Amino acid sequence: MEFLSGVKEKETMELGELLTGEKTGQEVCVNGFIHSIRDMGDVAFLVLRKREGLLQCVLEEGTAGLSVKGLKEEQTVCVTGILEEDARAPHGIEVRIRGIRILSSPSEPLPLPAGKWKLSTSLEAKLNYRSASLRNIRERAKFRIQEGITRGFRDFLYSQGFTEIHTPKIGAKGAEGGSNMFRLEYFHHPAVLAQSPQFYKQMMVGVFDRVFETAPVFRAEKHNTKRHLNEYTSLDFEMGYIDSFEDIMAMETGFLQYTMKLLEKDYAEDLRILNVQLPRTDQIPCVRFAKAKELAAEKYGRKIRNPFDLEPEEEVLIGQYFKEEYDADFVFVTHYPSKKRPFYAMDDPEDTRYTLSFDLLFHGLEVTTGGQRIHDYQMLSEKIAARGMTEEGMEQYLGAFKYGMPPHGGLGIGLERLTMKLVGEDNVREAALFPRDLSRLEP
Amino acid sequence: MEFLSGVKEKETMELGELLTGEKTGQEVCVNGFIHSIRDMGDVAFLVLRKREGLLQCVLEEGTAGLSVKGLKEEQTVCVTGILEEDARAPHGIEVRIRGIRILSSPSEPLPLPAGKWKLSTSLEAKLNYRSASLRNIRERAKFRIQEGITRGFRDFLYSQGFTEIHTPKIGAKGAEGGSNMFRLEYFHHPAVLAQSPQFYKQMMVGVFDRVFETAPVFRAEKHNTKRHLNEYTSLDFEMGYIDSFEDIMAMETGFLQYTMKLLEKDYAEDLRILNVQLPRTDQIPCVRFAKAKELAAEKYGRKIRNPFDLEPEEEVLIGQYFKEEYDADFVFVTHYPSKKRPFYAMDDPEDTRYTLSFDLLFHGLEVTTGGQRIHDYQMLSEKIAARGMTEEGMEQYLGAFKYGMPPHGGLGIGLERLTMKLVGEDNVREAALFPRDLSRLEP
Repeated sequence: MEFLSGVKEKETMELGELLTGEKTGQEVCVNGFIHSIRDMGDVAFLVLRKREGLLQCVLEEGTAGLSVKGLKEEQTVCVTGILEEDARAPHGIEVRIRGIRILSSPSEPLPLPAGKWKLSTSLEAKLNYRSASLRNIRERAKFRIQEGITRGFRDFLYSQGFTEIHTPKIGAKGAEGGSNMFRLEYFHHPAVLAQSPQFYKQMMVGVFDRVFETAPVFRAEKHNTKRHLNEYTSLDFEMGYIDSFEDIMAMETGFLQYTMKLLEKDYAEDLRILNVQLPRTDQIPCVRFAKAKELAAEKYGRKIRNPFDLEPEEEVLIGQYFKEEYDADFVFVTHYPSKKRPFYAMDDPEDTRYTLSFDLLFHGLEVTTGGQRIHDYQMLSEKIAARGMTEEGMEQYLGAFKYGMPPHGGLGIGLERLTMKLVGEDNVREAALFPRDLSRLEP
Repeated sequence: MEFLSGVKEKETMELGELLTGEKTGQEVCVNGFIHSIRDMGDVAFLVLRKREGLLQCVLEEGTAGLSVKGLKEEQTVCVTGILEEDARAPHGIEVRIRGIRILSSPSEPLPLPAGKWKLSTSLEAKLNYRSASLRNIRERAKFRIQEGITRGFRDFLYSQGFTEIHTPKIGAKGAEGGSNMFRLEYFHHPAVLAQSPQFYKQMMVGVFDRVFETAPVFRAEKHNTKRHLNEYTSLDFEMGYIDSFEDIMAMETGFLQYTMKLLEKDYAEDLRILNVQLPRTDQIPCVRFAKAKELAAEKYGRKIRNPFDLEPEEEVLIGQYFKEEYDADFVFVTHYPSKKRPFYAMDDPEDTRYTLSFDLLFHGLEVTTGGQRIHDYQMLSEKIAARGMTEEGMEQYLGAFKYGMPPHGGLGIGLERLTMKLVGEDNVREAALFPRDLSRLEP
């Protein structure tokens, strides 16, 4: 009988191993895509694309019967050669090729010049040829950073006593009702796709105190803007026993601080490739909704058209105001009008026209919505009635409140928006591997 | 201007902090649900349910004006009192109450006796009253262990150079085609829910070499069994530059070994609560499909009805065989018939009726399907034609192969099945917070 006993070490090496210096002057074995070929006649430079970055390999025509003929970009190869230091090469090392074995060959050239440093093609082309465009080093680096954000979110919350949950995406009724839901048939029953894990995560506060989920959400919104996707990854948490909704903002601040450190430590190469300056998270200003509107209106001479609404342009100005006045990259805007928040939002007892809620703006773009929720069944039931809503279809959600719930609140972060702002893009589609919008259902 | 500068330490303490011994004899402050009340007249025992476990609090009638009257189960409270050691209490500690503040009160009693050690109600009742049944300590422990599995999967793969990806769940065409897909309308276009991230993760091997995703998948299968869900969490990975499909099984073995250690270390209390004996993962036997059928048939006298199919009952017998003969909890069954695998599976060059693929059985239940994939465009195209399939709708997927792909393979693990077997349940619904099956769309 054969047995498997775990991962065996491979002969082939990754960039990190080559960079330790231990193998300099020795023969090494590496695999990768041929990212680019520069043929100088007697000598050819093959740049290999490996998962940790680029590696220069030097092929001397004729050595050990080698020839650059027959090699082409996007082949995958296994190269043997001597590792040498060379200050002109990426990372200061190169491999002088002694042998090369072709693992696979493309049948067509790339439709985009992915081997170049900057992929100067249209967004449309990048999205149409996703499996090609992402082979560009700068394009893929954005998604490594996206990984770092998700990882930071989870690891920080684990450390704070949160439990990860998985809640269903197909359901009988959505969390916030309304028309923005995708509908489907579920074995002859009408069903919808979840636009948020809101109801479930609240119910689970009664079980685990603190929960989080990182999962897709679906919004059938007919927005065609640079900041909307119809499917996106939502980083959600919900926490019990809060003293005030400030606890939620403090937790998010902690997550951001933790994540920036993680990116600096483990994603330094990707930050360098994209020339990202990490935002300030040591202290994040906190301003009331009404005050934020006033400040932006005063400084930039913009009239307040609707005191109960915040337009995207106003968000941009608020972001600008806090950058200029406080050198702040993030700002919490608090106490949103009750009318603009869902029924489960906790009204401010000092002025019930407003709620104990907040948005987090990052360079003037909303990347988070959160707040304290109503935890008392009676109060929740009254608010539902006051809004002319029905409790029908929400029995399971309301059940949790009947059985008792601690004071609690939480938030949802749009992963793609946060990534987009962090890497300095201005269209959220740039921060989704395979974006879904009004007109895009493929790839 | 107010600023937020991160998470502040709370006065209230969690179980882990109380158990360090540093606070013994001192006043502490704790919050939680009143899980159960035992009123002895002069003295009452309140057991608090906290996220890390149960905590006994002792209330002496009349002390500082205290009374058990007015207290009830599932209230959330904040208790102040003196922390004392008491061998009879859970974890050997208790809090002698000096003051108690009610944070919230239920308006209805729980519909299930969640405060009992074993929740001896029907599965149906447990699922109908999910926000109540999960308040039972044993019920919720299953989902802490589920967290540990997901966490182990991600952390192990990070350490092995994998990149986490997020791929869309709404698409124009499914990975494996066919009738088992939920259909929906996407802004007047026909769309389906992803039954697997298969196509996307393969495409991303060309970008990141090694990728993984932990996300929901959707299967419109009309199975009503103890092991099927119509929505479940799939732990998927895909890796490039494999030497053979053994590399994939070795990686899974490594994940299992890492995860069992993680569970032992960080989830010991949950394992104890459920009395879980962790399975052996030091070496996992590996047997060919045809051989496995033979072995089970011989030992248990079961006729082989179809040499190209493995029935659930046969899987059970194979599991039993390897437990009895090798004390193995897991077994890799390899070389599944080509007919039973999707078109992208790599056929065994030595016998093309079989594939370089495998299932992992855990105590006789399939918890993983994986294998090597075809990476050559020509070969893939020929297999599609040979199966009478069309390339229509797969242009984006096939594009990746035209542009070149390394030899690769991967797998998908059913999180709920793995959890169910690990905690010793026999119905997969027991291992889903909110299961979706043929008849269940709520809660």
